[in-house]
Amino acid sequence: MKSIAEAKKFYETLGLHIEHEETVEHEQVKTAMLPLGETRIELLEPTAEDSVIGKYLNKRGEGLHHIAVQVADVDAAMAAMQTAGVRLVNEVVKVGAGGHRYFFVHPASTGGVLVEIVGE
Amino acid sequence: MKSIAEAKKFYETLGLHIEHEETVEHEQVKTAMLPLGETRIELLEPTAEDSVIGKYLNKRGEGLHHIAVQVADVDAAMAAMQTAGVRLVNEVVKVGAGGHRYFFVHPASTGGVLVEIVGE
Repeated sequence: MKSIAEAKKFYETLGLHIEHEETVEHEQVKTAMLPLGETRIELLEPTAEDSVIGKYLNKRGEGLHHIAVQVADVDAAMAAMQTAGVRLVNEVVKVGAGGHRYFFVHPASTGGVLVEIVGE
Repeated sequence: MKSIAEAKKFYETLGLHIEHEETVEHEQVKTAMLPLGETRIELLEPTAEDSVIGKYLNKRGEGLHHIAVQVADVDAAMAAMQTAGVRLVNEVVKVGAGGHRYFFVHPASTGGVLVEIVGE
């Protein structure tokens, strides 16, 4: 499978549809957002074999990559986790496409789940 | 980690808390629900090594196990998927604790993601 065009077919049987599709050049990934109530499912497709997602697919296969939780204050969330001794992937908040701010929490502190914390 | 008591510590740094904890005896699993907007995160902890979740943890390690999508009509969702040739884990709708109706979609049809379809 490994393609958004293929993966979306299943979600369409649930009545879900792609609202927004975008290629993030510097991350070599194509993304598609399927809104679902207050949340959304994000499909990821690598544009290069040696990209982060391309390598992940080759090593681990397809599946759930991460979950994202939206918070009102990204900096306060990072500070609270650092105080609690939570291991982070990024110790400095990153700024992505559209100016949204985010960081990733290391799976070692979450029971094996890669968690993205993203601002509003 | 492998315990709800340990795993919840991370989510508490995000201000999330367990609303409901329950042991499902016939599935040999303890579950904890953390509400998050319109959705919720479910933590799973096996009560026996040779249970479905116990064996999963021993084989694959901790991580994201599945996602669940709530639909208005479980039977219609199953019929739509069968018509589309989607591979299902259960070809008959199951009835769980509290009478909720559900079935699982096979990862082969979803890009490697175990998906639960659950009624309202």
